[in-house]
Amino acid sequence: MSSVRPTVALLGLLVTATVTAAPQRPVREAAPAEPLPAETAAAQVRDRALAGGSVAWELLESLTTEIGPRPTGSPAMEAARAWALARFKALGFQNVHAEAFTKEAAWVRGQESGAIVAPIARPLALIGLGRSVPTPSAGIEAEVVVFSTLEALVSAPMGSLAGRIALVNQPMTRMQDGDGYGPAVAARAYGPSIAAARGAIAYLTRSITTGNARAPHTGSLVYEDGVPKIPAAALGVADADLLSRLVARGAAPRIKLVLESSEIASAPAWNVVGEVPGRDPAAGTIVIGGHLDSWDPGQGAIDDGAGVAITAAAAKLIQDLPVHPKRTIRVVAWGSEETGGSGAAYAAAHATEVEHLVLAGESDLGAGRVLRLLLPKMPADDPLRRALAIVLAPLRVYVGTDAAHDAGSDVEGLKDAGVPVFELTQDATLYFDIHHSADDTLDKVERADLEQAVAAWVATLELLAESEGGFR
Amino acid sequence: MSSVRPTVALLGLLVTATVTAAPQRPVREAAPAEPLPAETAAAQVRDRALAGGSVAWELLESLTTEIGPRPTGSPAMEAARAWALARFKALGFQNVHAEAFTKEAAWVRGQESGAIVAPIARPLALIGLGRSVPTPSAGIEAEVVVFSTLEALVSAPMGSLAGRIALVNQPMTRMQDGDGYGPAVAARAYGPSIAAARGAIAYLTRSITTGNARAPHTGSLVYEDGVPKIPAAALGVADADLLSRLVARGAAPRIKLVLESSEIASAPAWNVVGEVPGRDPAAGTIVIGGHLDSWDPGQGAIDDGAGVAITAAAAKLIQDLPVHPKRTIRVVAWGSEETGGSGAAYAAAHATEVEHLVLAGESDLGAGRVLRLLLPKMPADDPLRRALAIVLAPLRVYVGTDAAHDAGSDVEGLKDAGVPVFELTQDATLYFDIHHSADDTLDKVERADLEQAVAAWVATLELLAESEGGFR
Repeated sequence: MSSVRPTVALLGLLVTATVTAAPQRPVREAAPAEPLPAETAAAQVRDRALAGGSVAWELLESLTTEIGPRPTGSPAMEAARAWALARFKALGFQNVHAEAFTKEAAWVRGQESGAIVAPIARPLALIGLGRSVPTPSAGIEAEVVVFSTLEALVSAPMGSLAGRIALVNQPMTRMQDGDGYGPAVAARAYGPSIAAARGAIAYLTRSITTGNARAPHTGSLVYEDGVPKIPAAALGVADADLLSRLVARGAAPRIKLVLESSEIASAPAWNVVGEVPGRDPAAGTIVIGGHLDSWDPGQGAIDDGAGVAITAAAAKLIQDLPVHPKRTIRVVAWGSEETGGSGAAYAAAHATEVEHLVLAGESDLGAGRVLRLLLPKMPADDPLRRALAIVLAPLRVYVGTDAAHDAGSDVEGLKDAGVPVFELTQDATLYFDIHHSADDTLDKVERADLEQAVAAWVATLELLAESEGGFR
Repeated sequence: MSSVRPTVALLGLLVTATVTAAPQRPVREAAPAEPLPAETAAAQVRDRALAGGSVAWELLESLTTEIGPRPTGSPAMEAARAWALARFKALGFQNVHAEAFTKEAAWVRGQESGAIVAPIARPLALIGLGRSVPTPSAGIEAEVVVFSTLEALVSAPMGSLAGRIALVNQPMTRMQDGDGYGPAVAARAYGPSIAAARGAIAYLTRSITTGNARAPHTGSLVYEDGVPKIPAAALGVADADLLSRLVARGAAPRIKLVLESSEIASAPAWNVVGEVPGRDPAAGTIVIGGHLDSWDPGQGAIDDGAGVAITAAAAKLIQDLPVHPKRTIRVVAWGSEETGGSGAAYAAAHATEVEHLVLAGESDLGAGRVLRLLLPKMPADDPLRRALAIVLAPLRVYVGTDAAHDAGSDVEGLKDAGVPVFELTQDATLYFDIHHSADDTLDKVERADLEQAVAAWVATLELLAESEGGFR
């Protein structure tokens, strides 16, 4: 970078700082039972987290070791519910309970296998996509047609894939904020119905990943109404490339697929809740959390054991303060993010208290360092914004000028109902290397990064929970 | 580094360079049919390789796509023999043939599975070790005892593991030259018999890897005579760590293992040979090559399709020179490195021509860049050494002062019979992340690195094959 001119927003801050020497925070007594000035309390809890004083690692280690992967509808998810209830109580949270809801159908993986059978014989590393229908039990054997992008598949004429299997081998771009996922994931989510509409009898996608591990990456698909539902799986990137190379030779490779799965109708699910009560019941509640459910091949460490651990650990540091901030902090361990439903169920169950919910934010982008805080739209010289910038700067976290827009899929329902959201953007450079795969395990988590994330969350929460006014 | 004083050896070179202005190489005519000065020819073939003019990528792409993994004794290895014969002929090599030998036993993997059954239920990512005996078909279920290092297992009292399964969870150190493999691999090779001697009924090792992928890494074990042979497998690193964490909780985890395998007695195997004939039949032969066999879970791309491709491509560039160097270059695609035997078979078959073999070297450390050339012991101011230093410097390859000692396991037998060896050390920083695992696939190979390796090999070979005198 060749210039160091401050942005306009920063210039505004500098001007304001000159005019008002002291931050616009309520002045409070220093006696232990009285609240510290929020900035001081925020810096204290931030530094406690950084020094290893949070329970985030312990929670994440426990969840991944004792429970492991926990798809919604599985016995492991039931164990995870009990784990979260017990842990939230042990942390001293109040009002700890599980809020039950029903999933129309929980998807359960069965045996899966695949192989190239001609012109060579080679096993394929693959994993079924969530919500995929099964193949017949004898499997499907057919020629595979390879498309370099989803757009190329869309361009294929209707009927052109009749009796064949479509593969979209579109790579994903590595972006620090994970923004490459959106354009790539369409191949997984919508590819099956796009292929089926053109006559395909099964669908494969290159794993939606920035990594190059052989292990395939799962995730949910979305069938389009009125189009035949065809079985669908993700291939390891090396396997997708191998098929592309065979096609480049002029071969018309044939593959055999066996994908077993079943569905549990009206499956029970839960959002587990615990609270750190605020000093002022009228000051409203801030909803935070991560999702407790996970995909099945790994341990659900970065997706999203980390989010549960980071937010619960941040709340615990506030719980332990001699004086709580004004607002209540509510931690929710959502119970069905991966196959959908927990955010909508939460919003529906809490429709009558929406006005009481001051802010909402989810931690669901792994265990990497926090880089940035995005807030609801507010003036650049808002004193709260300035206080947040000051307390977060030592963590190398800045307060972005854009308003928060993507605060996690489990708070989408609240957002739609009018609850303002905030976002602590994490470094997701490596996140999609292991996301939704067998490689999502505890050893991928850098403890110091996890603790930095807790520090950013707790400092942010303390200031937000002590702040005046609303964000609407 | 704070000082830039040249080493003593380099000082010697500088002095010599001042005294003798021109390198001590035979002066030759410039006419096309006459040999170029070796330095010029070496620089030409080096630059041709760097510019993408070698067949290395094409060979490696073909081998990994069309043949894939090729354990000795498998039908794939038979296909690989035919592939190598056809390819060597198509490259214009002379005297192309396969030299058959017999393996006492070829090991064949069967179905394998493992799981933690108590205090939690969790599948384990594992892979059987080469030469392991199978478990009973119903499997083995027992408590697992975890040791942090092989030394800790050695320290366990005799009989202390009776009826139990031993796990050594010793990590491997990442070293640029791959030197961390030696100290780590003992846990795989010798751990089974060390555990069996202490009463263990099965053995597990953390995968011998610098990576953290869930995919386990196989490799051969060596049973000690007089000790019961117990089944043995490697765990993914996350799985080994999970068991360690359970033990750290005071649990005595129980696991279930099913490892099927069989052996083919008197299995046929082959070393495939092709030659680039030298101008002077009396000037002797330089033996180079890589090994054609591979482990089964990946594609055998970096281990060791790359070595076959690099050395055959280097020989091909010399084959295409208008005038060949004096010495013959013989490329050998060895046929049983992973489970042993091809080097010994080759040395035995060529015992009578050992005096005719001037030098030998194998490429078996992946597809990374060459960093260093090690030669047989010679004076620091030897003109050949100086010429090599000059032609390799643009590739950022230096000529090391130590004598070559580890030139690849397939030339160990020749070395023991008195054939001098040379070594082109590759950057192995990432090699053991994927070695012997499902992740050893073509997409891990950086084409520019592969071509730099060919450039280093071909420049070195041209000068060695044109040089005077011997290396004994």
